[in-house]
Amino acid sequence: MRVGVLTGGGDCPGLNAVIRAVVRRGVKEFGFEFIGFRDGWKGPLEGVTTELGIAQVRGILPRGGTILGSSRTNPFKVEGGVEQIKANLAEAGVDALVAIGGEDTLGVATKLAELGVDVVGVPKTIDNDLSATDFTFGFDTAVNIAMEAIDRLHTTAESHHRVLVVEVMGRHAGWIALHAGMAGGANVVLIPEQPFDIGRVCDFVEERFKSQYAPIIVVSEGAVPVEGGDMTLVSGEQDAFGHVRLGGIGDRIAGEIEQRTGKESRAVVLGHVQRGGTPTAFDRWLATRFGLHAIAAVADGDFGTMMALRGADIVRVPLKEGTGELKLVSPEEYAEAAVFFG
Amino acid sequence: MRVGVLTGGGDCPGLNAVIRAVVRRGVKEFGFEFIGFRDGWKGPLEGVTTELGIAQVRGILPRGGTILGSSRTNPFKVEGGVEQIKANLAEAGVDALVAIGGEDTLGVATKLAELGVDVVGVPKTIDNDLSATDFTFGFDTAVNIAMEAIDRLHTTAESHHRVLVVEVMGRHAGWIALHAGMAGGANVVLIPEQPFDIGRVCDFVEERFKSQYAPIIVVSEGAVPVEGGDMTLVSGEQDAFGHVRLGGIGDRIAGEIEQRTGKESRAVVLGHVQRGGTPTAFDRWLATRFGLHAIAAVADGDFGTMMALRGADIVRVPLKEGTGELKLVSPEEYAEAAVFFG
Amino acid sequence: MRVGVLTGGGDCPGLNAVIRAVVRRGVKEFGFEFIGFRDGWKGPLEGVTTELGIAQVRGILPRGGTILGSSRTNPFKVEGGVEQIKANLAEAGVDALVAIGGEDTLGVATKLAELGVDVVGVPKTIDNDLSATDFTFGFDTAVNIAMEAIDRLHTTAESHHRVLVVEVMGRHAGWIALHAGMAGGANVVLIPEQPFDIGRVCDFVEERFKSQYAPIIVVSEGAVPVEGGDMTLVSGEQDAFGHVRLGGIGDRIAGEIEQRTGKESRAVVLGHVQRGGTPTAFDRWLATRFGLHAIAAVADGDFGTMMALRGADIVRVPLKEGTGELKLVSPEEYAEAAVFFG
Amino acid sequence: MRVGVLTGGGDCPGLNAVIRAVVRRGVKEFGFEFIGFRDGWKGPLEGVTTELGIAQVRGILPRGGTILGSSRTNPFKVEGGVEQIKANLAEAGVDALVAIGGEDTLGVATKLAELGVDVVGVPKTIDNDLSATDFTFGFDTAVNIAMEAIDRLHTTAESHHRVLVVEVMGRHAGWIALHAGMAGGANVVLIPEQPFDIGRVCDFVEERFKSQYAPIIVVSEGAVPVEGGDMTLVSGEQDAFGHVRLGGIGDRIAGEIEQRTGKESRAVVLGHVQRGGTPTAFDRWLATRFGLHAIAAVADGDFGTMMALRGADIVRVPLKEGTGELKLVSPEEYAEAAVFFG
Repeated sequence: MRVGVLTGGGDCPGLNAVIRAVVRRGVKEFGFEFIGFRDGWKGPLEGVTTELGIAQVRGILPRGGTILGSSRTNPFKVEGGVEQIKANLAEAGVDALVAIGGEDTLGVATKLAELGVDVVGVPKTIDNDLSATDFTFGFDTAVNIAMEAIDRLHTTAESHHRVLVVEVMGRHAGWIALHAGMAGGANVVLIPEQPFDIGRVCDFVEERFKSQYAPIIVVSEGAVPVEGGDMTLVSGEQDAFGHVRLGGIGDRIAGEIEQRTGKESRAVVLGHVQRGGTPTAFDRWLATRFGLHAIAAVADGDFGTMMALRGADIVRVPLKEGTGELKLVSPEEYAEAAVFFG
Repeated sequence: MRVGVLTGGGDCPGLNAVIRAVVRRGVKEFGFEFIGFRDGWKGPLEGVTTELGIAQVRGILPRGGTILGSSRTNPFKVEGGVEQIKANLAEAGVDALVAIGGEDTLGVATKLAELGVDVVGVPKTIDNDLSATDFTFGFDTAVNIAMEAIDRLHTTAESHHRVLVVEVMGRHAGWIALHAGMAGGANVVLIPEQPFDIGRVCDFVEERFKSQYAPIIVVSEGAVPVEGGDMTLVSGEQDAFGHVRLGGIGDRIAGEIEQRTGKESRAVVLGHVQRGGTPTAFDRWLATRFGLHAIAAVADGDFGTMMALRGADIVRVPLKEGTGELKLVSPEEYAEAAVFFG
Repeated sequence: MRVGVLTGGGDCPGLNAVIRAVVRRGVKEFGFEFIGFRDGWKGPLEGVTTELGIAQVRGILPRGGTILGSSRTNPFKVEGGVEQIKANLAEAGVDALVAIGGEDTLGVATKLAELGVDVVGVPKTIDNDLSATDFTFGFDTAVNIAMEAIDRLHTTAESHHRVLVVEVMGRHAGWIALHAGMAGGANVVLIPEQPFDIGRVCDFVEERFKSQYAPIIVVSEGAVPVEGGDMTLVSGEQDAFGHVRLGGIGDRIAGEIEQRTGKESRAVVLGHVQRGGTPTAFDRWLATRFGLHAIAAVADGDFGTMMALRGADIVRVPLKEGTGELKLVSPEEYAEAAVFFG
Repeated sequence: MRVGVLTGGGDCPGLNAVIRAVVRRGVKEFGFEFIGFRDGWKGPLEGVTTELGIAQVRGILPRGGTILGSSRTNPFKVEGGVEQIKANLAEAGVDALVAIGGEDTLGVATKLAELGVDVVGVPKTIDNDLSATDFTFGFDTAVNIAMEAIDRLHTTAESHHRVLVVEVMGRHAGWIALHAGMAGGANVVLIPEQPFDIGRVCDFVEERFKSQYAPIIVVSEGAVPVEGGDMTLVSGEQDAFGHVRLGGIGDRIAGEIEQRTGKESRAVVLGHVQRGGTPTAFDRWLATRFGLHAIAAVADGDFGTMMALRGADIVRVPLKEGTGELKLVSPEEYAEAAVFFG
């Protein structure tokens, strides 16, 4: 049997661990051959492959990124894309695919499976916002990096009269902010699921200063003010990419706090630092087990499935189910943590 | 309501995070008062208490150890111990207890609960060998420390012709060895659940050298040779504590490999480094949530329970159930990982 | 003998290590008594003291910040300030002072020494821009934190087509940017000593993309464009503190690169993360030795001096000399590193 | 010009950083060509070479070990070795050599230089025991790893009644033990330069327990008891390599303390963990600058020299001088630190 492997979407620590586990078990236990497709779905679409075997996966376990490259190419947006993929798979003699990626990459996998391509999925999202699995790999690494930054900021919070705003990843879901804030002992956590009232944030800031400690505020990049919440000072302009470059939400909140409370405020923007570099033990373990089980699903002919963590076990769920729904922070979970926030 | 808190057994990163969460939520949400008992069950037994409130738990989240001290005192082994505890609780005006500890500490809690003491338990074992919960706090920290050591040893394994043996914690269960070995890319993992054959280990060592890389062997402190397996070289002597001081299992295996294969071998013994210092984000999050839910159980009057992680949720299980059975590495899980070992 | 100790200026990992060493040696070797002054020169000015002895310095070695607090109070800007200090020192029975701080704090110490106050100085600047000493403590910690961030960003640089701009500390001197950039393998380093031409930076960015790697640019917060260099897109506005809040130099450069090259660009702003938390071994060693030698200088009656590192030795230099001149990155040192930049 | 590069002796974080800097500057500034010799002096002796250019040094800066391999081969112990080397260099068209290594490797370089080989040396010893230079690379990494272990052990020292003995590297010189012990706040440091009296160590242990903290003892692997100091309990046996396998000095001291004081004692043996893995910022900076200056020395034709750190500057010293004398911890430096030890 000849198995193709690809990785799609954004960087996520653990991708290489999945690839390594798929190949090691595939070769040693099932006697499979492997071929790598470059840059996500672009690889099978354009027929760009790379050698993949025991030698290629040696030493990659602790490394960030993906040896197969990645992209956001969607073959369903390319005319005749699906046929091209089928033709390229046939030409390369590929019997089955292991696709590692997030909502978009697995969404493509789901549709291809329905169209008869033998594919098994491994979920990947650093934001941990996939309802099918308890946790996704990459998330634990991101949370630890953010937590270590918050740990260091406590020194300043204790000694100085500065408000510190830490902006972390999370466009739609506040998991990184919630976990890092909880683990780091932050005083306020603002997440996309719960629009914030800047006035109440500022009230808290002033309250906090009475206790001699300056507040540390953790904010998801996707957090938004409540409707009508005035964030007028720091509007910024759109740049060439449509970014409001001079005003990530962290920076905007810091500016607003200064303006309203007169307390000096600084933003820390960790950005891509959270998604690069070596994975934590948890992420390496989870990614490795996802890989081991994905190739077993291939061996079983159990296509159209993806791997999921349930408790300490890896289970197979239908691909469709896995990509259907975002897992958001519930009001209860947010409230539970709020005993520390303020 | 007045709640007593105690921590028992060995060190485990996250104990302070539990205490902090219990107190913060107890005070802020339920309006409880708290009192700390010193050194595990010794505290209530001898009536040694310490102040415990918001001020005492400030800043302890990232710190290893326990601000309440610990011991292995068992009141059931002291004549009249239970009566003394009841009297001391009454005198201190304590309505309920939160007991944080492992098998022994919670075993006492279980019996006391049956004797009418209102107690809620929080499980603690760095070895992760508790069947009631998916994971225990402290484990993730230990695994990360061991993994980082293995990461560094790969440099030597690549450049030199030395066998490296890493001894990690785990008296009865091989979880730390298995996870750290898997995350670190070790070549052999030896665990208590599966007695090892030193001859086969040496065969592997010689095989491995043919591929130009020296092997890294991870071994649980509780791993044992198969019956009849000759480990005669390195017998050691018992010291004053009954330790076979000059022959932890790691050191003994290293000696045996040298003797049999003629390959230079070195042992790394991480010891208490694995259980001290600041917890990882996962352990802080888990410990914090255990604490938040434990005090809610107190508020609900749901005594005789202990907290457990199931998936990403915290649930309450009967104390008795939580301490009944060791969770061991199953043959299937060990086999699954073995695709990397050798 | 009774010795007062104070710390002034901004946070710097290692301050507590100095205090601990001063007190330990002072008590154990010289039999001195100690008293702490709170918040830099504000302490002696307003007579705010705190107990300081072996008990107070226990466990503080690994901790960031300063147990004595800090401020930027300058008694020479307060009418009658010097007399007040002399009176307060006399009243507290203080025979000598150890002042730990940067240019401003030691500048005050220098003048007080000329006015007859018995003071010994310990230099502190995270920016490493003091000409009297080979290195200052805090600098190594900051460089390591910045380097670790850059290490992680390489993952993204390898996989994606994004320009990454890392803004690090350094208002007047580029030491942190230069060392972190060199240690992290950055592709461009921009420092205050060498005004940069944004056009040339963009040329390099485009050149770099041809080699399939995206560039990582490290920039000191105090870096400035060459005169006439157009940075018009991202002007920002002054906020309440006179900060150009929406346009730290890192963010501004990222915006300008996007605008000019059409390549997506992101800024990472580490901010106070660089100056908080536990110090590295080098900083603990240097701070400890500064402290040990400072109290020996007090014991010798060698006042008006400050400690300096020369090679691996601690020497005493006149206070005046120590604070006279900024140590900047020379054109030769910058050129030497440039073999990696581009 | 065609330059050969080799690395000899034991692992040391920073070797790859030197190679990278030599090649980058050599190619970009001087237009040199490079060739790598494998496994130290074995490479030129046996004519084993490997390609070395910009492509080969990409991405190696953060990696431990050496891409060129290493060995302890001494061509002066091989009949006709020197002639063979000269012949192989001539055949490979090599005009000059950069030799990176410790006492032995540079000792060979020194003799070859006298015999007319054009060679420049870069010193390497993780033990920091070279008198010609203020610091060597690798040392800072080792000290940080040992310090982090000690940091974690403090948790146990605070909570329990166990003596912890940490064995660190250092056969002849106690620099790692001294710096790590000082930075980690150890209570006793035992170094090769100062034979220890186990009786006094035990006295201290008992004294320390009165203060409620258990002691942490750091010991160099090369530390020895004073003559007549009885260490009879834990004699161990020699194994096949002549190692006293069951009795590294750390383990032996732990056993002796248990026997004499009745206090439970544990040893932590970090071993090769200290010399593997990614280098610290200081070591990357120092190694990089050594490399930059070594190739400049080649360009200048300044052969027979080696690089040394003096203050913050890199200087050239005669090879002979650099390898002449061990730099040991002086009695004064040891005494200075002793204010913390007990």
